[in-house]
Amino acid sequence: MKDIADISATMTELGKRARAAAAQLAFASAEAKRAALISAADAVWARRGEIIAANARDLEFGRDKGLSPAMMDRLMLDEARIQGIVDGLRTVAEQGDPVGEILAEWDMPSGLHIQRVRTPLGVIGVIYESRPNVTADAGALCLKSGNAVILRGGSESFHSSGAIHACLVEGLRAANLPEDAIQLVPTRDRAAVSELLTMTDYVDVIVPRGGKGLVGLVQREARVPVFAHLEGIVHIYIDKAADPEKALRVVLNAKTRRTGICGAAECLLIHKDIADGLGADLVRALIEAGVEVRAEGLSGSLPATEADWGKEHLDMIISARVVEDVDAAIAHIRHYGSNHTDCVITEDDAVAARFFERLDSAILMHNASTQFADGGEFGMGAEIGIATGKMHARGPVGAAQLTSFKYLVRGNGTTRA
Amino acid sequence: MKDIADISATMTELGKRARAAAAQLAFASAEAKRAALISAADAVWARRGEIIAANARDLEFGRDKGLSPAMMDRLMLDEARIQGIVDGLRTVAEQGDPVGEILAEWDMPSGLHIQRVRTPLGVIGVIYESRPNVTADAGALCLKSGNAVILRGGSESFHSSGAIHACLVEGLRAANLPEDAIQLVPTRDRAAVSELLTMTDYVDVIVPRGGKGLVGLVQREARVPVFAHLEGIVHIYIDKAADPEKALRVVLNAKTRRTGICGAAECLLIHKDIADGLGADLVRALIEAGVEVRAEGLSGSLPATEADWGKEHLDMIISARVVEDVDAAIAHIRHYGSNHTDCVITEDDAVAARFFERLDSAILMHNASTQFADGGEFGMGAEIGIATGKMHARGPVGAAQLTSFKYLVRGNGTTRA
Repeated sequence: MKDIADISATMTELGKRARAAAAQLAFASAEAKRAALISAADAVWARRGEIIAANARDLEFGRDKGLSPAMMDRLMLDEARIQGIVDGLRTVAEQGDPVGEILAEWDMPSGLHIQRVRTPLGVIGVIYESRPNVTADAGALCLKSGNAVILRGGSESFHSSGAIHACLVEGLRAANLPEDAIQLVPTRDRAAVSELLTMTDYVDVIVPRGGKGLVGLVQREARVPVFAHLEGIVHIYIDKAADPEKALRVVLNAKTRRTGICGAAECLLIHKDIADGLGADLVRALIEAGVEVRAEGLSGSLPATEADWGKEHLDMIISARVVEDVDAAIAHIRHYGSNHTDCVITEDDAVAARFFERLDSAILMHNASTQFADGGEFGMGAEIGIATGKMHARGPVGAAQLTSFKYLVRGNGTTRA
Repeated sequence: MKDIADISATMTELGKRARAAAAQLAFASAEAKRAALISAADAVWARRGEIIAANARDLEFGRDKGLSPAMMDRLMLDEARIQGIVDGLRTVAEQGDPVGEILAEWDMPSGLHIQRVRTPLGVIGVIYESRPNVTADAGALCLKSGNAVILRGGSESFHSSGAIHACLVEGLRAANLPEDAIQLVPTRDRAAVSELLTMTDYVDVIVPRGGKGLVGLVQREARVPVFAHLEGIVHIYIDKAADPEKALRVVLNAKTRRTGICGAAECLLIHKDIADGLGADLVRALIEAGVEVRAEGLSGSLPATEADWGKEHLDMIISARVVEDVDAAIAHIRHYGSNHTDCVITEDDAVAARFFERLDSAILMHNASTQFADGGEFGMGAEIGIATGKMHARGPVGAAQLTSFKYLVRGNGTTRA
């Protein structure tokens, strides 16, 4: 284990190299970036034996460390999962290139022609936990958007991430792009994370990928902007004008399709006029589907307690509460929500409009499953995560959201009066 | 003078009120916001006697404190300047309302219809120095964009800002908008600034308006995002393919029209092939116009020293240097620039394209005066400042740049497979 002074020097060196690579990448051609990703995909497939061998070392380390079966599963790579990584790289390769896109242009009476053009952010730090595939996903999205990236994987996936990273570097080399465009922190020492979070000269934004513990730590300690969400406390309000069939379909999908993702429903708010009818039907259907319903004003599996409001269950559990009307639902969501994704089920357009207008979650939905909260389902291609901040990237963060812009102004010897 | 515990409690109370007002303002009608600004403009004009009397108290305080003539001038209000404030309020009132604007919309194969819609940021803290008119300008732009604002004026303009603020509140009241939408910090104590910079629960973004000292302090101490630029170290590169007449016209305008603004040119970079011709003519014209030229590789008023590169003169002084070619100019700007505004003078489109592509200043100009770096000249209406960060607002920050967005997703009982 290296000492802290070494770590600091190592990270500064990584930062300098990333900054230099970013300056080159900012005007790398779309074709070169595409070619690098295709070559990286080829390399991952060609070197899958090597990757699986590296993964075996990580699995052994994980077993010795006593990782839970869920964590061991997240860590594990086999040919099918490596095929997934290859497909992911190819998908990002074939997406449109966001850099240089003209976002707006106009003429001024002074004679100036003004364009607003997409540019990369610069250097992105990505901090993730046990899934080694994030190495490829995050590396690819950052490269596509013209950013240099410093990847800091979980200590459990150290060897797997290293093997995948070697393939990304092979892709960069094949396309004549700077190898420092995608760097992997070469130590398991946790001091490297603290360094990365405070390297304001070399890092423009941090993206944490992982659980609430990791994201909270990053949000507290980072001295650079963070694109993230801490929790997805997703609410569904069932209005008195809800279509019962749509409500049942959407709620069951939103809760049970996958319970561990940030767009999974965590709390039902039910209009008092339909509590005994549709409300009771919803609770029954959820319980039949194996969901524990912690209810207030309804008979559920269990009575709800204060701790159930604003709770991200991430499991086959849902909180449910009877509310006075849409305004009470809005008030509940403002108080207990996380500004991630919230949904209204109603056939009354005025109620939907009020819900859309008076809430400010990154994603608001009407008569649709909250499980659609996903960059792919939004048509953005791959995503690096979902952000709930007000600044810059918000909602699903894909390649286009990893960019900034600049103004290009053209005159003809034009001077200001 | 209150003690620190009082200040902290006072600021927290301001923050809570601002947050509550912001929740209301987010869906205030465009007409109500417009009416509030028109009423505020009427009130400022009707109460101009009161404002001038308050200003007299500030001027007396300033004289006692020994403020420089320049600072006293910035502080002073007369009927003409109050007319300027009234005009500014009316201009913002008549601008388009950014909130609710649909930035993009599309359909997905799943059947979802997705809209990306502009929303306010929330609560903005504005910290400024001696100019009391910022109270009206910043208050108006924040209100127009649906944000609540906490204004913290310079201690020198305490009474003037208070009198103007009273008129803004009168406008809010007349339009039935929450009076807490525009609050003024009610103390001169500097501890209030530190509080404002770290109130992460109540403040979404800080905009500092003032000199490098203030902006630097805010950037170092703020725990919330800051929209600002530290310096405008504006470069003009004169290419060997420059049109001499355009070059002379643009350079003289960019340096001498107003020397104290952030878009004023501070450094000329001249291609070696034209150093003795156009380069010498430019230096001569600048010296004739009263500009001190600190030159390297050219004969100027004085020889340049290392301290002249990356120097924001904000005066009738310009640095000038002969460079090898456009790439050397780009390298100089990357090293010494401030990412604010930089310009190329050339008739060679390939050179202009290279300059535009390889630099990442917030504003890049071709054959146009850098004094156009201004929200009004960009067609954005009034501006609260110019930002050089990569996140969110960049370049001139007008009402539209003081917003965020949310996604509105409409389905028809749509579930995810």
